[in-house]
Amino acid sequence: MSSKKIDIAAPVMKKNDRIAAALRDTFTKNGVFVINLISSPGSGKTTLLEQLARALGSAIAVIEGDIQTRRDAERLEKTGCRVHQIETGGACHLNAQNVADAVDALGVIQSPPKVLVIENVGNLVCPSGVDVGEHMKVAILSLPEGDDKVLKYPAVFTRIGALVINKIDLANVLDFDVERVVRECSTLNGDFRTFQLSAKTGAGVRPFCDFLLRKAAELAP
Amino acid sequence: MSSKKIDIAAPVMKKNDRIAAALRDTFTKNGVFVINLISSPGSGKTTLLEQLARALGSAIAVIEGDIQTRRDAERLEKTGCRVHQIETGGACHLNAQNVADAVDALGVIQSPPKVLVIENVGNLVCPSGVDVGEHMKVAILSLPEGDDKVLKYPAVFTRIGALVINKIDLANVLDFDVERVVRECSTLNGDFRTFQLSAKTGAGVRPFCDFLLRKAAELAP
Repeated sequence: MSSKKIDIAAPVMKKNDRIAAALRDTFTKNGVFVINLISSPGSGKTTLLEQLARALGSAIAVIEGDIQTRRDAERLEKTGCRVHQIETGGACHLNAQNVADAVDALGVIQSPPKVLVIENVGNLVCPSGVDVGEHMKVAILSLPEGDDKVLKYPAVFTRIGALVINKIDLANVLDFDVERVVRECSTLNGDFRTFQLSAKTGAGVRPFCDFLLRKAAELAP
Repeated sequence: MSSKKIDIAAPVMKKNDRIAAALRDTFTKNGVFVINLISSPGSGKTTLLEQLARALGSAIAVIEGDIQTRRDAERLEKTGCRVHQIETGGACHLNAQNVADAVDALGVIQSPPKVLVIENVGNLVCPSGVDVGEHMKVAILSLPEGDDKVLKYPAVFTRIGALVINKIDLANVLDFDVERVVRECSTLNGDFRTFQLSAKTGAGVRPFCDFLLRKAAELAP
């Protein structure tokens, strides 16, 4: 007797992917470059966004994803950034419908920023497989997390267009082999840019801003 | 027309919980105190285990959970520790069947250690809801992750019996309010112990070892 496995998650994912594709199309038509920012908790996503908000002003808007609390949105609001907080209430990643709702709430299409950052739930695993309509996935790996993480958590590093190595201000007190990380990521992924920076001090943030603006300019309608 | 939601994950979870309960019963009868060690990637789970392995010798055994690679098991094998690596191949947490298989492979029942540590996949979200037969969940939060994480990721902190605050050797270069973390965890959880330590230097590891041995002694058949 032959048996056939039924993938019960498939219809849900197809619906998610349809919404994500429609979002991406809308973003592209409106010249909004969208990144899906993925990392572990505490890698510095929100601190980096505070720097980007100060540098880019009204050219950036942010969708914050967290399981619970508005803490990250409140931090960003202090910089004057246009931000909307999603609380997933337990879910370990954002989905495309979350983002579609936030895009409406933020008025992204009515008043398009050049760059929209979707800060995903702090989780190096689950967000990597879920399309939320972004043009590019960007991962942050910070020095205290260790330089052995790329091949242990390959799903996200396979799919990124940019790798941000954060907390380089701690390079004097931590052992972290940047070359190892980039080399191992290159075995998974033939097309990603690397940025070394400190979201805390601001060192190295400017080249990453310029990269985002250049990507937005390439989309401009 | 009334509608009824069907929880398609329920039968799977029931099977997992049955296996977990049987494991826990076996561990208790054999005097093996079992912890499920949960944290983000890079919080220092494996480094702490290297310290525990040196301090506890044959009194400890370890089940390593990773998405991919045998890196963590190889690190622990160098200390002489009895260790079995599970590669989940993409899954974002261990389940009870993974642990049951590893318990067989390690010969835990044939030759019981006092303490068995299940190092879960590096993920502060998903492992917290899945029983793998442990007596106690233990979370590690390290200083570089920031002191705002408890209420942002409440599921794990609600369920722990011990909170390890790691990387205290970085207290001079990072702002981290230990009291805030303990206070916020206390709003979720009325019964957890806190240990501040540096898995890197070994400072503060001894009280955590003693705690594990005391818990094992309480189980002794």
